[in-house]
Amino acid sequence: MTHSTVSAPQNSGRPDSPTDAPPTDSPLSQSLFLRAARGEQVAHPPVWFMRQAGRSLPEYRALRTGTAMLQACRTPDLVTEITLQPVRRHGVDAAIFFSDIVVPLVAAGLDIEIVPGTGPVVANPVRRAADVASVHPLEPSDIGDIETSVRQLVGELGDVPLIGFAGAPYTLASYLIEGGPSKDHARTKALMHSDPGLWHDLLGRLAQISATFLRVQLDAGASAIQLFDSWAGGLSAADYAEFVLPHSQAVFTALGDRDTPRIHFGVGTGELLDLMRQAGASVVGVDWRTPLDVAAARIGGVTPVQGNLDPVLVLADWPVVAEQVRRIVAEGRRAPGHIFNLGHGVLPDSDPAILTRIVELVHSL
Amino acid sequence: MTHSTVSAPQNSGRPDSPTDAPPTDSPLSQSLFLRAARGEQVAHPPVWFMRQAGRSLPEYRALRTGTAMLQACRTPDLVTEITLQPVRRHGVDAAIFFSDIVVPLVAAGLDIEIVPGTGPVVANPVRRAADVASVHPLEPSDIGDIETSVRQLVGELGDVPLIGFAGAPYTLASYLIEGGPSKDHARTKALMHSDPGLWHDLLGRLAQISATFLRVQLDAGASAIQLFDSWAGGLSAADYAEFVLPHSQAVFTALGDRDTPRIHFGVGTGELLDLMRQAGASVVGVDWRTPLDVAAARIGGVTPVQGNLDPVLVLADWPVVAEQVRRIVAEGRRAPGHIFNLGHGVLPDSDPAILTRIVELVHSL
Repeated sequence: MTHSTVSAPQNSGRPDSPTDAPPTDSPLSQSLFLRAARGEQVAHPPVWFMRQAGRSLPEYRALRTGTAMLQACRTPDLVTEITLQPVRRHGVDAAIFFSDIVVPLVAAGLDIEIVPGTGPVVANPVRRAADVASVHPLEPSDIGDIETSVRQLVGELGDVPLIGFAGAPYTLASYLIEGGPSKDHARTKALMHSDPGLWHDLLGRLAQISATFLRVQLDAGASAIQLFDSWAGGLSAADYAEFVLPHSQAVFTALGDRDTPRIHFGVGTGELLDLMRQAGASVVGVDWRTPLDVAAARIGGVTPVQGNLDPVLVLADWPVVAEQVRRIVAEGRRAPGHIFNLGHGVLPDSDPAILTRIVELVHSL
Repeated sequence: MTHSTVSAPQNSGRPDSPTDAPPTDSPLSQSLFLRAARGEQVAHPPVWFMRQAGRSLPEYRALRTGTAMLQACRTPDLVTEITLQPVRRHGVDAAIFFSDIVVPLVAAGLDIEIVPGTGPVVANPVRRAADVASVHPLEPSDIGDIETSVRQLVGELGDVPLIGFAGAPYTLASYLIEGGPSKDHARTKALMHSDPGLWHDLLGRLAQISATFLRVQLDAGASAIQLFDSWAGGLSAADYAEFVLPHSQAVFTALGDRDTPRIHFGVGTGELLDLMRQAGASVVGVDWRTPLDVAAARIGGVTPVQGNLDPVLVLADWPVVAEQVRRIVAEGRRAPGHIFNLGHGVLPDSDPAILTRIVELVHSL
């Protein structure tokens, strides 16, 4: 990893206006990742991995021993070190801010725990008007630690871009309504259809929370953002368009006219890709089910795509992985821009050495 | 339900040749379901529901008390009554043969239990060459009870068509390799890629088993078949084309040149629909994620589709359900033929009265 002399951008002090961007000819602005994310021609795709900072790395597991997930996410020195680990080890082209989808919800005052082996557990699931009224706005002052983490990180990363992280309103709502992870999101879909007014009230509040979480990261120097709508792929296109798209759009709109790349991703969203682009994405993340050239055509042929190696195949032998990587890079060359990634997060039992070899292979193609 | 005078077709006695079909002007052959499945013009779509025979019905739960699933599936009087229950109650346009995906595997000698609340549990998961060698062919004589059940049913159903049932080779393989239900099918994908020779050996054996199970049902008088590849939607299109398609195709090919409709369905298969058609489907089942008109265009615009109400929405209030049904019928009218169904199986806590109203509504449109 290169430690350049580019300093963290200054916050303008006006929370609704964009931060002064680094000069467009800076090494950061001209990094492989940001050029590809802006749709510029590059020699080979940049690479990063969703969940690259996490349990696949022994140095992560060592660092996390004795510290609960939510505590780790609110401790700037830990967030900084965990976010940097995969950049150092793999030589990926971007860092992803280490956090959890529920961090901004907890910061906004909701009572949520992350139970190891289960996931987020919500003390009082949100199902009635009184519950929705308890979802208060997130203020930047609630997440001073996030700003500190990002500033530290940007200083350490130099000309390696940092991608800001947040969950999208629908996925946040599904956790709040179900009370935790769910197979079919039956209660979420029931609320959506049985009380659209309450649904839109809740999603509007969650859009404010997502947007504030991202804006704080951008103001502190993140170079791009990814909005994760992990579970949107369980919805029909009709339901997505009516009940979800307007709120994801509100998040992107609240970020203002910044020229920063906005990646939007969910699992199993083959039928939603163009709607996700319409919501305001400038790069559309694609899971492993949809070939990248098919995805690129489906979203209009002008928007870059990100993806899409099946994370399970990282567990296979190297020749199998290499063949899949070559296929995906070839499919990505038929798209108007490609950021190499997995089609979902790194599985915890992945071999980090295979991930490093993927980075090397993509960079050689 | 109409009890017509159409008698069960005679078995020709040659197991590799098709049964003498009922006359093409018979009430059975001219039933709404079979006409739509052949792509003929009909006034409104026929309706049936995947898992219509099952736990959503109190009369099913009463009948199953004290009888294990696999025992029920091998008892002709129970199979007959359970298959008939939803036809009587809802007035659906087709019956689906009550069985379980593992029935033919057990009949072929594999040691599998269905554990309530878990699903199929395989005593000795199939992961090495010696395990694959233990997957023996299914002989029609192993499933005399299935033939008996179908003959009884066809006699009772009269001019209501019976759809034969089997799991496709990939989904059967995933259960055998994982040892039971799995979230990411990691072991299945690992075997596929690490030992393609062993993979194709196993899938070839499973194709023989699926085909025999279906052929016995057709020879005994079933009017159509549905091949369920429940978990194929977890695969990339590239993996599906190389490792799965040839074996699903082998199943359809083994059924011969019969003019019986062949429905092929899996969950989350939006990117695989055209490959599933190429495998030999004459009707392509679609889950709720892909609008039916989009699906119809994606498979070439000449093949009828089946689907696709989100099963979770059956739990919503009737006005919500009715709006979705109208949308789906409208989208289906832009396809070259449409059989109304859910986008996956009926959930156990569905209200049967809502299912009956769906049938009535579709028939009125």
